[in-house]
Amino acid sequence: MTEASTAPKAADIQPAAGKLGIMIPGMGAVATTLIAGVEAIRRGLAKPIGSMTQMGTIRLGKRSDDNQPLIRDFAPIAALDDLVFTGWDIFGGNLYEAARTANVLDRDQLEEIRPFLESIEPMPAVFDQHYVKRLTGTRIKTGKNKCDLANQIRNDIAEFKTRTDRQVMLWCGSTEIFLEQTAVHQTLAAFEKGLVDDDPGISPSMLYAWACLKEGIPFANGAPNLTVDIPALRELSKLTGAPICGKDFKTGQTFIKTVLAPAFKTRYLGLSGWYSTNILGNRDGEVLDDPESFKTKEESKLGVLEYILQPDKHPDLYKDIFHKVRINYYPPRGDNKEGWDNIDIFGWLGYPMQLKVDFLCRDSILAAPLALDLCLYMDLAARTPSLSHLGVQEWLSFYFKAPDTAPGNIPEHDLFIQSMKLKNTLRHIMGEDLVTHLETPND
Amino acid sequence: MTEASTAPKAADIQPAAGKLGIMIPGMGAVATTLIAGVEAIRRGLAKPIGSMTQMGTIRLGKRSDDNQPLIRDFAPIAALDDLVFTGWDIFGGNLYEAARTANVLDRDQLEEIRPFLESIEPMPAVFDQHYVKRLTGTRIKTGKNKCDLANQIRNDIAEFKTRTDRQVMLWCGSTEIFLEQTAVHQTLAAFEKGLVDDDPGISPSMLYAWACLKEGIPFANGAPNLTVDIPALRELSKLTGAPICGKDFKTGQTFIKTVLAPAFKTRYLGLSGWYSTNILGNRDGEVLDDPESFKTKEESKLGVLEYILQPDKHPDLYKDIFHKVRINYYPPRGDNKEGWDNIDIFGWLGYPMQLKVDFLCRDSILAAPLALDLCLYMDLAARTPSLSHLGVQEWLSFYFKAPDTAPGNIPEHDLFIQSMKLKNTLRHIMGEDLVTHLETPND
Amino acid sequence: MTEASTAPKAADIQPAAGKLGIMIPGMGAVATTLIAGVEAIRRGLAKPIGSMTQMGTIRLGKRSDDNQPLIRDFAPIAALDDLVFTGWDIFGGNLYEAARTANVLDRDQLEEIRPFLESIEPMPAVFDQHYVKRLTGTRIKTGKNKCDLANQIRNDIAEFKTRTDRQVMLWCGSTEIFLEQTAVHQTLAAFEKGLVDDDPGISPSMLYAWACLKEGIPFANGAPNLTVDIPALRELSKLTGAPICGKDFKTGQTFIKTVLAPAFKTRYLGLSGWYSTNILGNRDGEVLDDPESFKTKEESKLGVLEYILQPDKHPDLYKDIFHKVRINYYPPRGDNKEGWDNIDIFGWLGYPMQLKVDFLCRDSILAAPLALDLCLYMDLAARTPSLSHLGVQEWLSFYFKAPDTAPGNIPEHDLFIQSMKLKNTLRHIMGEDLVTHLETPND
Amino acid sequence: MTEASTAPKAADIQPAAGKLGIMIPGMGAVATTLIAGVEAIRRGLAKPIGSMTQMGTIRLGKRSDDNQPLIRDFAPIAALDDLVFTGWDIFGGNLYEAARTANVLDRDQLEEIRPFLESIEPMPAVFDQHYVKRLTGTRIKTGKNKCDLANQIRNDIAEFKTRTDRQVMLWCGSTEIFLEQTAVHQTLAAFEKGLVDDDPGISPSMLYAWACLKEGIPFANGAPNLTVDIPALRELSKLTGAPICGKDFKTGQTFIKTVLAPAFKTRYLGLSGWYSTNILGNRDGEVLDDPESFKTKEESKLGVLEYILQPDKHPDLYKDIFHKVRINYYPPRGDNKEGWDNIDIFGWLGYPMQLKVDFLCRDSILAAPLALDLCLYMDLAARTPSLSHLGVQEWLSFYFKAPDTAPGNIPEHDLFIQSMKLKNTLRHIMGEDLVTHLETPND
Repeated sequence: MTEASTAPKAADIQPAAGKLGIMIPGMGAVATTLIAGVEAIRRGLAKPIGSMTQMGTIRLGKRSDDNQPLIRDFAPIAALDDLVFTGWDIFGGNLYEAARTANVLDRDQLEEIRPFLESIEPMPAVFDQHYVKRLTGTRIKTGKNKCDLANQIRNDIAEFKTRTDRQVMLWCGSTEIFLEQTAVHQTLAAFEKGLVDDDPGISPSMLYAWACLKEGIPFANGAPNLTVDIPALRELSKLTGAPICGKDFKTGQTFIKTVLAPAFKTRYLGLSGWYSTNILGNRDGEVLDDPESFKTKEESKLGVLEYILQPDKHPDLYKDIFHKVRINYYPPRGDNKEGWDNIDIFGWLGYPMQLKVDFLCRDSILAAPLALDLCLYMDLAARTPSLSHLGVQEWLSFYFKAPDTAPGNIPEHDLFIQSMKLKNTLRHIMGEDLVTHLETPND
Repeated sequence: MTEASTAPKAADIQPAAGKLGIMIPGMGAVATTLIAGVEAIRRGLAKPIGSMTQMGTIRLGKRSDDNQPLIRDFAPIAALDDLVFTGWDIFGGNLYEAARTANVLDRDQLEEIRPFLESIEPMPAVFDQHYVKRLTGTRIKTGKNKCDLANQIRNDIAEFKTRTDRQVMLWCGSTEIFLEQTAVHQTLAAFEKGLVDDDPGISPSMLYAWACLKEGIPFANGAPNLTVDIPALRELSKLTGAPICGKDFKTGQTFIKTVLAPAFKTRYLGLSGWYSTNILGNRDGEVLDDPESFKTKEESKLGVLEYILQPDKHPDLYKDIFHKVRINYYPPRGDNKEGWDNIDIFGWLGYPMQLKVDFLCRDSILAAPLALDLCLYMDLAARTPSLSHLGVQEWLSFYFKAPDTAPGNIPEHDLFIQSMKLKNTLRHIMGEDLVTHLETPND
Repeated sequence: MTEASTAPKAADIQPAAGKLGIMIPGMGAVATTLIAGVEAIRRGLAKPIGSMTQMGTIRLGKRSDDNQPLIRDFAPIAALDDLVFTGWDIFGGNLYEAARTANVLDRDQLEEIRPFLESIEPMPAVFDQHYVKRLTGTRIKTGKNKCDLANQIRNDIAEFKTRTDRQVMLWCGSTEIFLEQTAVHQTLAAFEKGLVDDDPGISPSMLYAWACLKEGIPFANGAPNLTVDIPALRELSKLTGAPICGKDFKTGQTFIKTVLAPAFKTRYLGLSGWYSTNILGNRDGEVLDDPESFKTKEESKLGVLEYILQPDKHPDLYKDIFHKVRINYYPPRGDNKEGWDNIDIFGWLGYPMQLKVDFLCRDSILAAPLALDLCLYMDLAARTPSLSHLGVQEWLSFYFKAPDTAPGNIPEHDLFIQSMKLKNTLRHIMGEDLVTHLETPND
Repeated sequence: MTEASTAPKAADIQPAAGKLGIMIPGMGAVATTLIAGVEAIRRGLAKPIGSMTQMGTIRLGKRSDDNQPLIRDFAPIAALDDLVFTGWDIFGGNLYEAARTANVLDRDQLEEIRPFLESIEPMPAVFDQHYVKRLTGTRIKTGKNKCDLANQIRNDIAEFKTRTDRQVMLWCGSTEIFLEQTAVHQTLAAFEKGLVDDDPGISPSMLYAWACLKEGIPFANGAPNLTVDIPALRELSKLTGAPICGKDFKTGQTFIKTVLAPAFKTRYLGLSGWYSTNILGNRDGEVLDDPESFKTKEESKLGVLEYILQPDKHPDLYKDIFHKVRINYYPPRGDNKEGWDNIDIFGWLGYPMQLKVDFLCRDSILAAPLALDLCLYMDLAARTPSLSHLGVQEWLSFYFKAPDTAPGNIPEHDLFIQSMKLKNTLRHIMGEDLVTHLETPND
């Protein structure tokens, strides 16, 4: 590896000057927790726990140099004070009301920033119950076809551009039904024709993504929907230089899974079964109670083990894993999701052992800081030539259940490799040495 | 970093020719599980699950090269067929009997290799109940002072040298009482005078280590005893070129702890409390029921979080952790240890969440493959000039609750960094490129 | 209550003389564990743990009398030495082979009683895959219609009667698909016509029950199938004086549920949710993986809470319980079922609390002693006029997820009331005072 | 049994007219949760969940009669509106401040009843750090000897009598160090001499109890202290006709233990080990972190299994139970106690199984309704001649980890028998038939 010759210059990155507009389709629990939190943090009322861009440090040089600046001091990331929020939703009411409905943050905390939250009112959304069976919206755009609807979104974006200097879009809407790729997804031309023809393969999230990329704005996806995982929108991303990335926030159970599976593999402990069940009572749980939406989520969740454990390379350890993922709608808990994992491993000479993990987590509390980081890193990517020209931002795999890659690459699911990849990418674009943890005295 | 100039040549490593003798003080559950397992594996009756040297692969070059040989094909590691075992124990009987008492392996399995196990009979051991209150031995060496006892061990080693080409010693004996460093530990001269004077600061494990290093043989420590963590024996290690390393096998709860703590830190999730309790019913549990022995173990277990989480660098996240570790002797389970962790974390804006982990593991099944790897890697280190001259083998931190480092270095507890350090060290000594996980298309 | 006048005389009970024949449709895991266990116990190789008839005591008189004989010394229960086993199965092979396939008992244990097990070979079974989708049998009776098949069973029974003095039938076959009651189930005449007409409402388990009751033999049901819960077969039971009882062995999770729910109610703690999930890998798990069979099981499992908690009487505590039961086929565990319950309760002023229960149990180990007790108690009932004339044996509710009652009665699910009812029934038929636990000095 | 002749007449019970004064030594978490709760319930702001006297029903007659009145409509229990509270504490401040420190109830809830709570200020307490090592009080009575201090309490009581019609005292103070019975505890005369002599065997809780009983007032004990478990104070109880009862609220782990142990016994499942650990962060946890106080608690907690399981009567099942109880002070949780039980059982033929229970409870939320019930039932006992003459109220065993009995009786720990005993006692004093759960059609 000879970084010297190919390393980008930090100077090539455009500065994070002016206002960064965050556009969010789906302003429910995650969006309101993000936005209320950012405002609380700006006012010094709370800390951005869980956010790498805000709390994270990065080691530079050798470990013994003890040089670990904050990431936001190291890389030119937009400041929280410069963030401006807008979005779309199918339910009426301002964000204070939406946050009260979501019931994630304490009432006391919401009251302190109530006027700010009341000042943001989602725009009417593009929605079609065919794609999300369990929801019934009240504020929905109408149009003569999907192309018309998508252009209404472009108009919304255009208006927002007059108020902000740069923009990022982050899908925080619901999980749509499982869609297979069809001809309409294969080329941009076919896709744009499909918009006019109301092709059923084009879901609402795709309309947002198309409008966003068409406007040259980065698009990130918090749900497991197909959306930009299609050649047509990758083509558009390349065309307009608007970064895209993986999908489906890696929060509760999958977060833990991508921590434990690498641990077993590192120790070459075998795996015979992994049973994961979730109970959650928020709107997400309600939507996933529909088998069609669950299938989309399931696909996103099941792939993880295969990629990390490489059963083809380690058949004695991983070729016969029985992997099951269940999600159950369980209203008593609301947003306080609980994940229970039962893991059957085996060790020396094949003797079986069990690990059980009970994660009493909070869905939106885990997702909000990831949402924030993604907005800021996607904006950074858009301003960094050596990243923006790549289209897909593989280095952001850290945030996703379903990381995206350049064509032909293998997605990386191991949380620690993802983290190292992310930080080494930051070091790389800023012209610093990469970390290898070799650390012998000769280093 | 310019590896090119400093990289060692693989050719400098001496080949793994001839018999490798494994000498084990303390031939109880771990030792018998190791030795019976090696024999079962040699006969094709079982697989060496959990052993990196036997099952592990190492990636060479870029990920897309898809070049992942087995580690034992890549580095000149001793073959299982070349291993010869001996050791010492305070209880009578051959290893078949010891394995039956330990009750770790199935009776059927033991019967298949019974003659082999019956052929190994531990030598009488050096033992002093002052250092392990709960045990009473029956086959104990006597001598006029500690120096005399240590020389009896040297004689045992000398005899074993006549039957083997190279040797490694691995302490699998009990946890001794907590010892503070005193003057007798500060120099080799003071230590050797203390041997003659029966200094109480010198425990039986130190006698074994002294004898071993004096004979130029690598010494590894499966228990948390002070043993070689003293200047006197480090001096001896340097003098004779015999490698030493960390201590206390990282098996059950601490293994998981050094997986989860890095996960929280990677995600910048805060930690307010971590309560760990263990129940186990084997001899180890009985010994640790004594408060003095438990203190030695506790020190080894408690340090882990501080090193990984760096509360000084992340005070908002980690400055107020309430960390408690309990071990309870619970005979109903025998060697089937159970660890229960209750972890209190907090996320975005400080909201609390909980993670609970119940690990139904098997103490010796987890330890045996680590014991095997350590023997083989310590032997490799002894044959590799660029490693042997270091004395302390930091790259083997992966295996220990209490990793050892060169003076002034900070121990690394993060399992994944430890793993990367180990594999990059192997790549380094074999002249291969190090892995950084950067993996941008320009790589 | 004036027991004196109505109390039956113990002398009315016919003695347990001669051989008691146990006939079991479905000789898989439960049946082989039962039969192998009875033989091991007869030979003094093991203890009948979990069996009230064998291990249980019954208190007579006041507590201070300290008079607690063994139940089998107190009531005229058949002796284990007098049991003779036969049965039917759709798979070939003798019971040693069936027990090896079931993989419940240790191989060593099976070898000790191998000749006995090999001496029992199930008769070909009546089976129809329409009612159990996931199984494919190999030894299946054929006949021109259901009546013919049922009469083949009667012939098998008649043959068994020549070898035994009394008989009991216990269904240990699979869970059939969910069946609603139809006209064919309403009268014995309609049912017997349906046999000839091959009515789809008549499942194989009904054929066995009909044949059994027709022969005047008690019938008990270890599965949740509809079977005798129909007027037609109740009519037959009355007609021939053959006792029937509840259904579906109360073993793992429901056993615990009927312990904890009464505890909450006794303390007047509220309940907002109860989420129960099971993982199991035996044939039962495979069958229940079929949604139609699962529905039958689910109905049996869900009713429990409603009956115990009486939400209509305690609306503030129990009117809004979200109760969910899941079963997942998970092969890594085999017969070692695991049930995980998450229970959301609330206390003083409505504050929420949680209880989580993880039960690492063994399906057949829990079921076998219940199967034994049921056979012995059903035989006792048949010999006790004051019980046999009742038809339905409510006092055996203790053993079932779905207890059966006389028409108009409310089933009792509380394990402790069930136990008291059972023991007071024994006291009652033996002419002893009932226990009230009042125990004031005036008693 | 011939209840008819000995049954008391309900008419003998004195009516619950006038004010009932509740006197509480130790006004911390439990007392404030009780008092704030009672006030919130009186105002209709919350429900008395968990309180049998308030929420409970009692079945009268046969089950099919469907006659289940509320207990408070059935028996002459004091009304909540008639309760008046006072007490003593070693810390300054009114009950609003004490409740805020205890941090059990939500701030919003406390604000609604703030003036009421502020109107109650504890009197200075008798305290001696010798008996509770971890606490340091600020408002402590001084006197020339223990007799003087006890008489100061009598004066406080006398003053309270002028404001209320009847009184009950309930100890809610801390767990004192373990005390063995000595000569001073054997007779009232010796005890009263010990008061003057400052005998170290007389702890502060005994001073309160002596003063209370001397005034003819019932005394109940929420902590495991020795207090009235001594002949001297039993003598006094008899002398003044003031009822006493068991001790140590049965709330979290022991509540569950006395539910599960009877379940295992009812099913004749064996038990090889029971490991119970608790983590809690309130003042109680802090006090129990002192080994001397823990010993008092441990004794109270360990006895439970022996009494329920009767290993002498069931040696095959229960003679070798390894029972361990641990309590760990763990501040991150405050009053939200967590108990983790690991239970090793065995079934048919001795096969082992495990049950694990994780109880995320709230210490004071569970205790407060028990405290309320005890006050009301002790007052009822004092007004009921057939109960008050007994001294010890065995029928209230339901509420205690350590039930008290008449001399020579065996304490009952089974929660369900305790519940039945309590309700049958209520039926008994009100002249109703007892319930036996026989329920055969002849009933």
